[in-house]
Amino acid sequence: MHYADGKTTPCLNVLPSQVHGCSDLNTSAFIQRMIQAGKPNLIVFTGDNIFGFEAKDSAKSLNAAFAPAIAAGIPWAAVLGNHDQQGTLSREGVMKHIVGLKHTLSQFNPSEAHIIDGFGNYNLEVGGVEGSGFANKSVLNLYFLDSGDYSTVPSIPGYGWIKPSQQLWFQRTSAKLQRLHEASMAKKSFAPGLVYFHIPLPEFASFDASNFTGVRQEGISSASINSGFFTTMVEAGDVKAVFTGHDHLNDFCGQMTGIQLCYAGGFGYHAYGKVGWSRRARVVVASLEKTDEGGWGAVKSIKTWKRLDDGHLTAIDEQVLWSKNLIPKV
Amino acid sequence: MHYADGKTTPCLNVLPSQVHGCSDLNTSAFIQRMIQAGKPNLIVFTGDNIFGFEAKDSAKSLNAAFAPAIAAGIPWAAVLGNHDQQGTLSREGVMKHIVGLKHTLSQFNPSEAHIIDGFGNYNLEVGGVEGSGFANKSVLNLYFLDSGDYSTVPSIPGYGWIKPSQQLWFQRTSAKLQRLHEASMAKKSFAPGLVYFHIPLPEFASFDASNFTGVRQEGISSASINSGFFTTMVEAGDVKAVFTGHDHLNDFCGQMTGIQLCYAGGFGYHAYGKVGWSRRARVVVASLEKTDEGGWGAVKSIKTWKRLDDGHLTAIDEQVLWSKNLIPKV
Repeated sequence: MHYADGKTTPCLNVLPSQVHGCSDLNTSAFIQRMIQAGKPNLIVFTGDNIFGFEAKDSAKSLNAAFAPAIAAGIPWAAVLGNHDQQGTLSREGVMKHIVGLKHTLSQFNPSEAHIIDGFGNYNLEVGGVEGSGFANKSVLNLYFLDSGDYSTVPSIPGYGWIKPSQQLWFQRTSAKLQRLHEASMAKKSFAPGLVYFHIPLPEFASFDASNFTGVRQEGISSASINSGFFTTMVEAGDVKAVFTGHDHLNDFCGQMTGIQLCYAGGFGYHAYGKVGWSRRARVVVASLEKTDEGGWGAVKSIKTWKRLDDGHLTAIDEQVLWSKNLIPKV
Repeated sequence: MHYADGKTTPCLNVLPSQVHGCSDLNTSAFIQRMIQAGKPNLIVFTGDNIFGFEAKDSAKSLNAAFAPAIAAGIPWAAVLGNHDQQGTLSREGVMKHIVGLKHTLSQFNPSEAHIIDGFGNYNLEVGGVEGSGFANKSVLNLYFLDSGDYSTVPSIPGYGWIKPSQQLWFQRTSAKLQRLHEASMAKKSFAPGLVYFHIPLPEFASFDASNFTGVRQEGISSASINSGFFTTMVEAGDVKAVFTGHDHLNDFCGQMTGIQLCYAGGFGYHAYGKVGWSRRARVVVASLEKTDEGGWGAVKSIKTWKRLDDGHLTAIDEQVLWSKNLIPKV
């Protein structure tokens, strides 16, 4: 969102005809339109929620940025980007503020992890339908991680990365969830996982137009080194898709070793963009299967598309990210 | 070493004139020659100590493989390769056997780490000169890790890798050693670190003849994915060189982001090699500086060369891996 001070904060890279009166409020309006159109069960904000450098008061900017989700009463979750801490609050302060806001499911950090790098590493379990055999069981696991801001290692330039402590927490959480799920199910079944963080992995650079859906209009601004989180996710086995922010002009999903690597696409109006190329948001829909007994069962497929902030909230690039009955190409 | 059953186990890829009578005993003799020539303070075996597939009794093969070091009474350390467990002992069993042998400094796993992947993850501290200001202080830190054998993840082919649990242990151990060192020194000083494991990292593929010392005569047989250990080492800050085995025909050192990535070079006679290209071993020498008071101080430089198992144990490719007074090219 790159939210700053609201209506006094101008839009970047919009058509000349759109400049007048354009501000952070257009970002807010876009959230409202998305909520109206999609009636989402959860909204995930993938970092750079505020653009700290230009936020006079980070707490106020955060309040304003998340206000449409809060006003709608829809559960929401956020992770940190690389710009959130550049205002009047530290990274720790931003995350502490976020977890105190209404209707958020964001968490500061896992309670069981003694020491973990970053702020806002947590997971959420999406329970099955009440009254079904999947009630009180997670049918979809969501993981949220802090991918850092900038390298603090002089010999490594550029952006931050997901550290071993975070990867170990993720690995153990995934293993625990898989054990619990298996133990609780009569039939062999499986809860797919989705992972959200801000900075794309180096593996995002593996794709081109021949093997992704969407566009790549700028370089992949990953960390300049590989910290191994892609490997850790592949090894964990449950992750089917990853969603990142960071690069505003890339909005593709590409599949590698069974995991879809997806950008959300640039959303905020006070963020660099491309003139004439609409701001956009990614929608993710997990559908349940019907069991033999006619009730609701496990997740059978995960689909995605994007909506453009144009006159019709045009939906583009619909695709199946994962389907229970399809073996992914590896 | 790829040790199997001793004198009945033939040599691979030697000159026709060398075939007759050539066996594992040539490997043993090479260790003895190296000990005679170098009078080392420590011998490190970088995995595939035995070639399990052809060892009738893994325990006996291990005993025989390390016998020259044990007989000489020289402290030695070993890590596991990908072939050690292919005989009558599991990976755990091989490492348990190793730590019970005489004069070894090998350890099974760190006691403080609750759960860690692999067997034979440990560190050693090399103390400064007795009577000097560096007595009872580590002037050189050695880290040993189990880089695994083969991937157990169906979608990832090939060799194993260093896991998040091991990286976190390494990271915390390095940080602890650096804190202790700083706290104990009046002047700002620094204990360099050396890391030993079997399977090279994907980063070993970054070099060619223009920026390494030695040769590359085969592909880099790293894991097919990057698990981030190079990044973790760079971030730790103390590691100056890494030494791996695995590829018998590569023996180079190349520097990247301040860390020398080195192969040992093929040593064992019952291991694939190249006809007419001598088996070889890498020597590493850490030299101490003289303090202003005329006593021995911290490590001032780390040099390396290789010795060939030819008539003269010819030394080749001498180079400085790290020097306290040189800022490395990054």
